[in-house]
Amino acid sequence: MTNPVLVEVNRGPLVESRHRGAIAVVDACGRTRAAVGDIESPVFPRSAIKLIQALPLVESGAADAFGYGTEELALACASHSGERRHVAIAERMLERCGYTPADLECGAHPPRNRGAAIALHRAGEPPGPLHNTCSGKHAGFICLARHLGVDPKGYVSPDHPVQREVSAVLAATTGATLGADVCAVDGCSIPTYAVPLDRLALAFARLVSGEGVSSDRADAASRLFDACMSDPSLVAGTGRFCTEIMADFSGRVFVKTGAEGVYCGALPELGLGIAVKCDDGATRAAETMMTAALAALLPMIDAERLLLGKWLARPIESRLGIKVGVIRPVAGLVDAIGEGRGLK
Amino acid sequence: MTNPVLVEVNRGPLVESRHRGAIAVVDACGRTRAAVGDIESPVFPRSAIKLIQALPLVESGAADAFGYGTEELALACASHSGERRHVAIAERMLERCGYTPADLECGAHPPRNRGAAIALHRAGEPPGPLHNTCSGKHAGFICLARHLGVDPKGYVSPDHPVQREVSAVLAATTGATLGADVCAVDGCSIPTYAVPLDRLALAFARLVSGEGVSSDRADAASRLFDACMSDPSLVAGTGRFCTEIMADFSGRVFVKTGAEGVYCGALPELGLGIAVKCDDGATRAAETMMTAALAALLPMIDAERLLLGKWLARPIESRLGIKVGVIRPVAGLVDAIGEGRGLK
Repeated sequence: MTNPVLVEVNRGPLVESRHRGAIAVVDACGRTRAAVGDIESPVFPRSAIKLIQALPLVESGAADAFGYGTEELALACASHSGERRHVAIAERMLERCGYTPADLECGAHPPRNRGAAIALHRAGEPPGPLHNTCSGKHAGFICLARHLGVDPKGYVSPDHPVQREVSAVLAATTGATLGADVCAVDGCSIPTYAVPLDRLALAFARLVSGEGVSSDRADAASRLFDACMSDPSLVAGTGRFCTEIMADFSGRVFVKTGAEGVYCGALPELGLGIAVKCDDGATRAAETMMTAALAALLPMIDAERLLLGKWLARPIESRLGIKVGVIRPVAGLVDAIGEGRGLK
Repeated sequence: MTNPVLVEVNRGPLVESRHRGAIAVVDACGRTRAAVGDIESPVFPRSAIKLIQALPLVESGAADAFGYGTEELALACASHSGERRHVAIAERMLERCGYTPADLECGAHPPRNRGAAIALHRAGEPPGPLHNTCSGKHAGFICLARHLGVDPKGYVSPDHPVQREVSAVLAATTGATLGADVCAVDGCSIPTYAVPLDRLALAFARLVSGEGVSSDRADAASRLFDACMSDPSLVAGTGRFCTEIMADFSGRVFVKTGAEGVYCGALPELGLGIAVKCDDGATRAAETMMTAALAALLPMIDAERLLLGKWLARPIESRLGIKVGVIRPVAGLVDAIGEGRGLK
């Protein structure tokens, strides 16, 4: 099946570029509330499921054993920008369980945040694994290994007890079968398992509603959702979609990006999970698709609608700051999601 | 018409992302030698036609009047990375005709080259218009204005004599009608006119072969092609596709990127022009499409084939440098272009 065009990039009188994709909105009973495009083929969720990957850290008691609070839990779910606070919390997470940045197996890259990257260079320091956008998640993995009484070394391998715990939770919450045929390696070296969008949305619906999961899992999920939504600057970073949306809709929206155009989301008051994938992997389009879903599903007051508007019609500016184009959902997309039908 | 998938991004056992697009290969007589996807709808060529936009600079005698040599001509065709040499040549181009960076109307942004951006920050200097990837083209526009005896002020406006000259050459070489219905504003504030891919390819075939254009225009084009291919580090920058491909195929290939997934190219020995557009605007895919065209069309020795191979199967690596995926043309694309037929 060919996914429909969901996002248009306009310049002057013409559409300059087009993004295709698929959107699934599912409730905790597994009812599909909206389906646009192919929501049954497996897609790699990448970092969009970090909250699910952090569940064993909380459920096992590891987080409590090492005194992880809201900040640590939010960072365990984060694809952070390597800002000063992100790095400090990741380092603290390791210290608390007796490890150091040298134990991280995620690799290094410069901070995503431009200011942080410049500051690092000015200080003459090379980027380290703490600056890796996934360092909070990895610190959580090491903490889990410590709590399980196993050597963290090799914790990124699919066969390590940590990854076995993580993939078991992903399989249980999504109901998907996670075999070698859908397993690849993520940018931070851990396994990523491809799961259909409807299954990803189902998992987030279950976790955000607490239905269809054990009460322990529901409690753990609730703590992680609360941590992310109460301190969203930790989950991504300055100016980024996840951070701004969660801040603007305090407690009403959870959203989390993954590489290659994936987004997962959850709406606590509606008990709905959302999963989107842009075919071509573009983040700008995945963000616009998620925005369309929020616009369609969430009752909003005018102030909230105004805040969402900036993502719903995203200006393209010249280098002089003049508006020369706009990125927006295709006509009819918001209505189609709201009415629970596909896009013609 | 729905363009076919031309590029796949693979991770482990699965295709993670897909890029659709179109490719036109045309000779100077206007014969379409290969057509994949829709090559008749207008697309904004953006910076991919800088060589065409630089023709009036040479044809008018302005370049000679102000002593522009190979370096200045290459930079006039460039989307450079803001490296030290790029900036120095752009500044010299302005000095030669009696103007300064303050006269540039392209706006400023940090150098695309990471090292250059860091060096600038270390020096405590804000990025200026000379660092704009289009500063060489804009310096050429100012030089042309000076030579035409008109005030350069407002040279980015469609009504300014400079842009009228530029659009007249684009209309003449492509045979396209350039009205307000296909006109938008580029990132550097000049007008960009949407032109079908087959017309863009035709223009490059005419200019590289010298057929179907006046001998003055053919001479001017020849000087610009030679400048770009003899010093390709000026046309883009360290590690970039345009620079590496032109260096690897010294004098046999001209390629030039444009924003939002456009590429134009020319093969002097075959008298062919190439134009590609990735639907979703991704540079990685447009580069892979252009690579497929080169692999299909250009007779190559083993050493050249080896050099092209790195772009034909582009590895995706984890942060630890382990190969975890690959970006490549879809099966059959190279053959389809080589045999001059569409993709099934």
